[in-house]
Amino acid sequence: MTNHVYKKVELVGSSPKSIEDAIETAITRAAKTLYNIRWFEVVETRGQVSDGRVAHYQVTLRVGFTLDE
Amino acid sequence: MTNHVYKKVELVGSSPKSIEDAIETAITRAAKTLYNIRWFEVVETRGQVSDGRVAHYQVTLRVGFTLDE
Amino acid sequence: MTNHVYKKVELVGSSPKSIEDAIETAITRAAKTLYNIRWFEVVETRGQVSDGRVAHYQVTLRVGFTLDE
Amino acid sequence: MTNHVYKKVELVGSSPKSIEDAIETAITRAAKTLYNIRWFEVVETRGQVSDGRVAHYQVTLRVGFTLDE
Amino acid sequence: MTNHVYKKVELVGSSPKSIEDAIETAITRAAKTLYNIRWFEVVETRGQVSDGRVAHYQVTLRVGFTLDE
Amino acid sequence: MTNHVYKKVELVGSSPKSIEDAIETAITRAAKTLYNIRWFEVVETRGQVSDGRVAHYQVTLRVGFTLDE
Amino acid sequence: MTNHVYKKVELVGSSPKSIEDAIETAITRAAKTLYNIRWFEVVETRGQVSDGRVAHYQVTLRVGFTLDE
Amino acid sequence: MTNHVYKKVELVGSSPKSIEDAIETAITRAAKTLYNIRWFEVVETRGQVSDGRVAHYQVTLRVGFTLDE
Amino acid sequence: MTNHVYKKVELVGSSPKSIEDAIETAITRAAKTLYNIRWFEVVETRGQVSDGRVAHYQVTLRVGFTLDE
Amino acid sequence: MTNHVYKKVELVGSSPKSIEDAIETAITRAAKTLYNIRWFEVVETRGQVSDGRVAHYQVTLRVGFTLDE
Amino acid sequence: MTNHVYKKVELVGSSPKSIEDAIETAITRAAKTLYNIRWFEVVETRGQVSDGRVAHYQVTLRVGFTLDE
Amino acid sequence: MTNHVYKKVELVGSSPKSIEDAIETAITRAAKTLYNIRWFEVVETRGQVSDGRVAHYQVTLRVGFTLDE
Repeated sequence: MTNHVYKKVELVGSSPKSIEDAIETAITRAAKTLYNIRWFEVVETRGQVSDGRVAHYQVTLRVGFTLDE
Repeated sequence: MTNHVYKKVELVGSSPKSIEDAIETAITRAAKTLYNIRWFEVVETRGQVSDGRVAHYQVTLRVGFTLDE
Repeated sequence: MTNHVYKKVELVGSSPKSIEDAIETAITRAAKTLYNIRWFEVVETRGQVSDGRVAHYQVTLRVGFTLDE
Repeated sequence: MTNHVYKKVELVGSSPKSIEDAIETAITRAAKTLYNIRWFEVVETRGQVSDGRVAHYQVTLRVGFTLDE
Repeated sequence: MTNHVYKKVELVGSSPKSIEDAIETAITRAAKTLYNIRWFEVVETRGQVSDGRVAHYQVTLRVGFTLDE
Repeated sequence: MTNHVYKKVELVGSSPKSIEDAIETAITRAAKTLYNIRWFEVVETRGQVSDGRVAHYQVTLRVGFTLDE
Repeated sequence: MTNHVYKKVELVGSSPKSIEDAIETAITRAAKTLYNIRWFEVVETRGQVSDGRVAHYQVTLRVGFTLDE
Repeated sequence: MTNHVYKKVELVGSSPKSIEDAIETAITRAAKTLYNIRWFEVVETRGQVSDGRVAHYQVTLRVGFTLDE
Repeated sequence: MTNHVYKKVELVGSSPKSIEDAIETAITRAAKTLYNIRWFEVVETRGQVSDGRVAHYQVTLRVGFTLDE
Repeated sequence: MTNHVYKKVELVGSSPKSIEDAIETAITRAAKTLYNIRWFEVVETRGQVSDGRVAHYQVTLRVGFTLDE
Repeated sequence: MTNHVYKKVELVGSSPKSIEDAIETAITRAAKTLYNIRWFEVVETRGQVSDGRVAHYQVTLRVGFTLDE
Repeated sequence: MTNHVYKKVELVGSSPKSIEDAIETAITRAAKTLYNIRWFEVVETRGQVSDGRVAHYQVTLRVGFTLDE
């Protein structure tokens, strides 16, 4: 790591399947426009419930990527 | 959302299988007495260990539901 | 629980598969030297990304065990 | 205050008008079933947006009341 | 701990004597209506002062109990 | 909510009139370039004082919007 | 801002009308003895309830002012 | 509570005996110069150890009092 | 304090009697293997309840000691 | 400050020399594309270690700038 | 430390040079009126930016001193 | 990073010179017994004051290192 500068953006991914799938949904979407994603941090995990069952997991992430020089 | 009032209750679900299963265990139990559950927020994730292995995941949730008018 | 004293150590487990697998990796490693692990608490969940995909989940745990008398 | 015990419940009030109106909506609803409400604490303020304007303020409160002896 | 679900309620106990007495006042009151209290967590400690002396300790607790199946 | 991904940006709105007006100032400005704003969360409320009076309320918000597919 | 030193004091303002009025009540009172108040930060918002209605909003502020050289 | 303004100051009391005694040491000292102390909030509890025993409990408090009109 | 380095370890002491006794139980146990304990910080206070009464106070501490040169 | 709206972005600057140099590295990089940077807030300070020495300081900042009208 | 009572005040020091210089600016100013300053705790580090460069570091401190008997 | 497990220990370094020197003092001491230190996180910055000047900076760190397989 030589004097790089990183930027973090905050995203929310959702998935009816699992927390990991919600994370990967957000990372996959972010990677369409951000080319140097390096890490993520989970900020919050929540979800929607309908008919007494979990309908979607919603995971808020901070996603860090290298800024181009 | 028209002037509804929501209540949140704090529950702990447990499961030997996964974090998601612990969450769903808590939601399923709550849905026996609460008819309008709308969302949950994960407050804490912990677990019990026995014989050097994870015995149970324990997830604390805040569960939000609509109060009847 | 009779007047026991517990100690907590902070570990980070990683796994390319899932959050639960990262937790179990850390617990399994800890159990090689700590004989009385009783519980863990998740402190932070993050991960590394490469080529626009999650490469590793990294979960920071506080692991509690009984101190020998 | 002589050895009373208080209970707190967590509510979310909403209003299209103001933060104060969202708080009062929650207190008014709670007062239908709780007779000895004494205080509230604001936990979170958020809101919904539609068509680029604030549609509802949503305020999460902890509401404290005296438990009957 | 086999797939139980726990609920937590938030109580405030008060006592002119000590922090422990304020905690026990809250637990004793809670035990009149909740049969399976298992643990508590101290959330906040405060107190009232009159004539330059502590008049009451007030301790906010989260009290956890097993939900009946 | 079907597998959408949301992004949050952090804004500070100011107003000499009220907290709500500072929030709406920020939302109105954000809506000029973001078409799918869905919610906001208040992060911090502060203000400037001059001549012993509140000159401006300043409210920090996280504003969430849907990312285009 | 040239090497000034600021001090912050913590105040609680109350008002039966609104959160803003509680803030201004505190600022007005502080300005009687502090001549260089520059900003405030809201630390906590709570209130008292009587007869099922909000009786007073109580807002805790940190108030910053320039220390005289 | 009619439009009063309160001020909070932060104090640390110490005692070799107990947490409550450290709190009361701080309140007693504060009451020498502050006439209208109304409440306190415990911010932090720590202590000094010497020769493997607790030498002093040290409790940080925020102490609230009414400002004279 | 001349360029010393300190280490902190996290311990949980328990006692059926009081919070102070739980703290001292942990310090006494730690002092069997750590010779230069200097201070502790209370991180969390909780307890176990059985038959509607407090069975044990459990206090989590960070304990600081001088590292040998 | 007249009804301006500010935006904050989160950056991580790194430097082998000092915390201040890591901050300035991030600000300098940000100023290439953001013309009205007004302030920054330090969110986290960490660093990388190699061969038992600090290799880089890494400072996470929130950087605030005026949005163009 | 024998039953002393300490008070903490919150100050903000600024400096164009470094974080340490901002801290020392605040301590030096405080020492003009407070004779027994014993320690400080950094609460927040931020700064002002002009022309794309750090203009001032601003460090918020809690400063602790012994109250005269 | 392939399924490694990391451990974090909490240290406090002190220095009369600067925050960076306090950090490096702690890392250097830790490196005498820990061979694979990888990163550190600053947890708290404080200091001692004597005769109205900063006598020592004290920086609390969490230091992460690879556990041997």
